[in-house]
Amino acid sequence: MSYVKNRKRLLDHGNKKARQIALDIIDKALLQADPYRAVKSLVRLDNDTLTVGEHCFNLKEAGRIFVLGAGKATFPIAQALEEILGDRIYKGLVTCKYGQEGQLKHIQLRLANHPVPDQAGFQAAQEILSLAQETRAKDIVFAGFTGGSSALMPYPTAGISLEEKRQVNELLLYSGANIIEINAVRKHLSQVKGGRLAQAIHPQAHIINLTVSDVIGDPLDYITCPTVPDTSTFAQAQATLAKYNLWDKVSKSVASHLKAARPQDESPKDLADHNIIDHIIVPGTAACEGAYKAAKEMGFATFILSTQLEGESKELGGTYADIAREIVAHNRPLKAPCVIIGGGETTVRIEGECGKGGPSQEFAVGAALKIEGLKNTVVVGLDTDGTDGPTDLAGALVDEYTLKGARQAGIDLYAALERHDVSGPLEELGEIIVTGATGTNVNDLRILLVLP
Amino acid sequence: MSYVKNRKRLLDHGNKKARQIALDIIDKALLQADPYRAVKSLVRLDNDTLTVGEHCFNLKEAGRIFVLGAGKATFPIAQALEEILGDRIYKGLVTCKYGQEGQLKHIQLRLANHPVPDQAGFQAAQEILSLAQETRAKDIVFAGFTGGSSALMPYPTAGISLEEKRQVNELLLYSGANIIEINAVRKHLSQVKGGRLAQAIHPQAHIINLTVSDVIGDPLDYITCPTVPDTSTFAQAQATLAKYNLWDKVSKSVASHLKAARPQDESPKDLADHNIIDHIIVPGTAACEGAYKAAKEMGFATFILSTQLEGESKELGGTYADIAREIVAHNRPLKAPCVIIGGGETTVRIEGECGKGGPSQEFAVGAALKIEGLKNTVVVGLDTDGTDGPTDLAGALVDEYTLKGARQAGIDLYAALERHDVSGPLEELGEIIVTGATGTNVNDLRILLVLP
Repeated sequence: MSYVKNRKRLLDHGNKKARQIALDIIDKALLQADPYRAVKSLVRLDNDTLTVGEHCFNLKEAGRIFVLGAGKATFPIAQALEEILGDRIYKGLVTCKYGQEGQLKHIQLRLANHPVPDQAGFQAAQEILSLAQETRAKDIVFAGFTGGSSALMPYPTAGISLEEKRQVNELLLYSGANIIEINAVRKHLSQVKGGRLAQAIHPQAHIINLTVSDVIGDPLDYITCPTVPDTSTFAQAQATLAKYNLWDKVSKSVASHLKAARPQDESPKDLADHNIIDHIIVPGTAACEGAYKAAKEMGFATFILSTQLEGESKELGGTYADIAREIVAHNRPLKAPCVIIGGGETTVRIEGECGKGGPSQEFAVGAALKIEGLKNTVVVGLDTDGTDGPTDLAGALVDEYTLKGARQAGIDLYAALERHDVSGPLEELGEIIVTGATGTNVNDLRILLVLP
Repeated sequence: MSYVKNRKRLLDHGNKKARQIALDIIDKALLQADPYRAVKSLVRLDNDTLTVGEHCFNLKEAGRIFVLGAGKATFPIAQALEEILGDRIYKGLVTCKYGQEGQLKHIQLRLANHPVPDQAGFQAAQEILSLAQETRAKDIVFAGFTGGSSALMPYPTAGISLEEKRQVNELLLYSGANIIEINAVRKHLSQVKGGRLAQAIHPQAHIINLTVSDVIGDPLDYITCPTVPDTSTFAQAQATLAKYNLWDKVSKSVASHLKAARPQDESPKDLADHNIIDHIIVPGTAACEGAYKAAKEMGFATFILSTQLEGESKELGGTYADIAREIVAHNRPLKAPCVIIGGGETTVRIEGECGKGGPSQEFAVGAALKIEGLKNTVVVGLDTDGTDGPTDLAGALVDEYTLKGARQAGIDLYAALERHDVSGPLEELGEIIVTGATGTNVNDLRILLVLP
């Protein structure tokens, strides 16, 4: 089974051998980042003993089990917990993204929109908060909040409408701000984020955070923000708005709430009176590490350049091409056959026009423009959740053919990149990668493969 | 002896141990790129036998020896040739940049402005062309045209004034165009470039090109353009103007000459009837390779990432920081102590304001903004000729102190970068590298050093 649904189309042109290998590496990378497998190996039930890593609970003495969650990698967490715990689950509710397949028996499934929040997500957020408020001492609450939960579980501060929050969200997404800057704002406009959901859970209940990280360095409060203490402040939210010139663009009630920054509205910085156990079940680096392992096993020279790559996507694509040309011309930094792996969260800075595209696709096009004449080079940009930017594409795979094909088809890839409108051209050329919801959501993957 | 004149200032703050090592690597990198040493090992005179690599000339039978040249790395070539050939040199004239120190006895030295051409350069170009026209069969012409010769030896096409050519030059330099694109235009506005000087030399004379490359991949016609056949065309010159929206900005006579593209004005694509011997005495990769050798000898783990790095300088600086953070957090791609070396010709795309700065300095600032907390990391951006962009600074060296120092001094490095005005702030912080004219001019150097 392959994660990539359009494998056939990707393999009907270009350097098929290299493309095949790149696709195999993608599959192994995504498998390594699978939360279902991670939960299955972390959580065990033997009779009445529930084991979560190093922690044991006697279910005869413990209270009820809740499962709460939202995010793009939450479904497989819920699925695994159901398989392990079955009807031991008292109540549960998770919010996933439209299109996320699968059924749950003991946990209610809500579907909502991402990245732009919708009413369905808002209603589910209210339900999740209600469940949290139902908890009592000794209860066990599995909290599976993964990347995307900010948008999937919107619950704006009183006085701010969902529409206003949605607008802030969109402004932030297109500003070039990184996820940490974006979240600092979001967490100060929410009734559940920034540890506020944990506050609603009974302090003598046990909160078990099962985290899948899509933030560089896995800072817990930015990934699993409803159920861990917050480190961001009103001041940081203000700084983000200033840095990206958004003060005049957000609504009045948003601006005044963030400017007022009343102490009683600040998110909790300390939840020491709560019992919280944190498990990063899949780190942000998982896809990179899976790709590295796969490349090693296939016998390629390989290294991970960095799992913390940020900055302008197309520029990094160009740098990947610069490295490819060096490998071909000088056998360095590695000798082909070789694979150079990177990951992180690169961004796209949009100033004028904006068509359809995303960071992983722009990365790939940035590389495609500069690998002319490199017959055995493939470059991949992949968003591990299957959703690159606001598109339903996971990313793109390019080789020498890409630019050639574009020329033949009369497609101007330079212009498409300038307009941030690369999805259409990539689709026409057969270079897009389609996975649908992968069930995971870790940092982006950037692969360079050079065969001899 | 160190190339870096302000060593003391660079070492009076920040991580002194790491800075010291980085400076030592810089010195060895520049030494490896020294044209004087290269000429001395290539050219030999034994009685009447002149040896140039694999070629031998019997000076009893040969004609007279000429030395012509222009460029930022031409002075040491002339100096070495004088030492070897002495009064065997019949006539010679080289144009160097103002500030280039040293005296020549047998070769006339002209000084001119760079990067903006001036009248002195124009006059010298006329003198060089006259000398070329003096040549006869069997004469030997050493041609030392190195990076910067385009600006130092301006000789516009008839009908175009020096001022008009200067304006085109400036527009190109600030457009973000790479050197190959820039040269395609320059070579179609010149009476000496694009092989035209070689055409003026007697076809039965011997032209010996001694080339120092500052162009990625060492394409001869882009480095030593007066004396090798051209590969660029009017069409490429036109494409450059279109790509960077310059058609409406250049003067009418420039636009009409480039648009007319008369066949008789096209540069020579073939000089097969001339005797031309090409020697790349110092390749563009020399500084990278010198740095690599130095790092190896010092016992560091090291690799050359690419000698062909292009793109936006500050973005690459950010990527270097991303790699540094990976080394510190995960011991990959190398384990500290390690040195990652890169080179190439990154650019700066200027759209609005433009202060004082250059690609190597912006690279360094791009890194400095993202290495907070990395106590043992140093990043260097160096233009090997000592002139980064239009400044008289060679580049900059940054570490964790840089951003800290900026904060203490109330300097906003983010804003300086936005305004392309980083030289002043870097100078105030003591992070600039000053070498004066180094006598070489190969591709830029980008060093990342991480100590344990």
